[in-house]
Amino acid sequence: MTIDGKRIAEEIRRELEVRVRGVGKSASRRIRLAIIQAGENEVSAKFIKQKEKFASEAGIETRIYNLPQGIFTNELRKKVAEVCHIKQNDGVIIQLPLPKQINTQYILNGIILKKDVDVLSEKAMGKFLAGKGILPPVTGAVKEIFDRHKVEVKGKNIVIVGAGMLVGKPTAIWLINEGATVTVLNEFTLEAKSYLLKANIIVSGVGKPGIITEDMVREGAIVIDAGTSEQSGKLVGDVSPDVEKMASLFTPVPGGVGPITVAMVFKNLLELNRY
Amino acid sequence: MTIDGKRIAEEIRRELEVRVRGVGKSASRRIRLAIIQAGENEVSAKFIKQKEKFASEAGIETRIYNLPQGIFTNELRKKVAEVCHIKQNDGVIIQLPLPKQINTQYILNGIILKKDVDVLSEKAMGKFLAGKGILPPVTGAVKEIFDRHKVEVKGKNIVIVGAGMLVGKPTAIWLINEGATVTVLNEFTLEAKSYLLKANIIVSGVGKPGIITEDMVREGAIVIDAGTSEQSGKLVGDVSPDVEKMASLFTPVPGGVGPITVAMVFKNLLELNRY
Repeated sequence: MTIDGKRIAEEIRRELEVRVRGVGKSASRRIRLAIIQAGENEVSAKFIKQKEKFASEAGIETRIYNLPQGIFTNELRKKVAEVCHIKQNDGVIIQLPLPKQINTQYILNGIILKKDVDVLSEKAMGKFLAGKGILPPVTGAVKEIFDRHKVEVKGKNIVIVGAGMLVGKPTAIWLINEGATVTVLNEFTLEAKSYLLKANIIVSGVGKPGIITEDMVREGAIVIDAGTSEQSGKLVGDVSPDVEKMASLFTPVPGGVGPITVAMVFKNLLELNRY
Repeated sequence: MTIDGKRIAEEIRRELEVRVRGVGKSASRRIRLAIIQAGENEVSAKFIKQKEKFASEAGIETRIYNLPQGIFTNELRKKVAEVCHIKQNDGVIIQLPLPKQINTQYILNGIILKKDVDVLSEKAMGKFLAGKGILPPVTGAVKEIFDRHKVEVKGKNIVIVGAGMLVGKPTAIWLINEGATVTVLNEFTLEAKSYLLKANIIVSGVGKPGIITEDMVREGAIVIDAGTSEQSGKLVGDVSPDVEKMASLFTPVPGGVGPITVAMVFKNLLELNRY
């Protein structure tokens, strides 16, 4: 079965809309997400557009703070503090990647805990590691898919491909906290195929086109593709489309994890503000 | 080869002693570790004694804060803040377990980052998860063993048994950050033996006597036993002593990871204070 990420995102949007309307009745202003962007980047611009679209359809305000490409780490950190300090900004995200001269983790650490919808400051990550608070958006998207398709993870053999900060590491930690048997593969793994062939569930977040092929997946496995890259101007995933026919659940790219991740940013925004 | 944890701890102690003497020349006071204990607990008392002994031999001061068994979470949290605030306390640890009525993570979060030698506050854990700062003591002990025996972890198939906050989870995260292929097993894992038999390295931190037996380990594997429990008044590990003869490196219990972990608490104390 192929998962329709757009449909799930739309369902979440409708759920959030109801909650947002509830807030509107009691509050004198709309809920707002601040997005900080440094420099210009085509891919980032596209992601920001997706968030703006989702927000406007859910009745949530967005404010984009555009900063120059050449900004220094200290200036940017000050700006983050300023944006966090504005009461009207209920949540703050920093669009990644940041320009090369920037110390990214230091900037992310500038987001205060209760506005960190992306869970990327060390404080928020530590809370998450302790099994508390909200999930990072991609991990939250994976959980939404599992919840909506009644996938039990406890005791399952789950293989995570890639150990990055946005997909692999947080998703592995969440699944470990949930009692799954989790293996994390990376570029140094020997015989990656032998691990993949035994997996009940595969979650990939590498960002290399089609690295997981049908000979690596066992019949009936659940395959979640959270890796995206561009190939000749088209968005493609880590998993070759051939895998779809063998998987019991399969997320395509585009239209799988991506749209749900956008929705989770706003679900986190509401959760953090207890709306 | 069987690792002599006491000898490694002694080597670390001598290294630290030299650094401590260097500080003594410039500072007007000795380096001090504060240990907060709530209630009475025989096992905790033993661990505290080990730390006091190591400290006194390394020229480091310790101060024990004994609090009543019936203390409330809010009082204890206030006490932690007070202890952290005292300039002479260069590091602060909370002896676990805390009494049942206490919200343990909330108490641990009261330790300020630069005094958190055990890396158990959410802030410190987040920093560690981001690949920065010091390692939690047990994980640091595993690293010491690997460093001193020239064990390369990148690309190795490493199986972690148990996903607790003190051993399994932090050690898995560190090894993932180092580029190992890491599998975390827990009580819900089916066919744990099939994972163990393929492992180059096994790290166990469950705390159940002898759950890893010789039929589960392949010839030449490295077996690190960081699990301890008591059996008829004796300290025993997760790994059956029979495994020793098949392992290329093996840590006994007692006298393996334990003494090195004590040493790492004090190494962290010096690192955090840049001594």
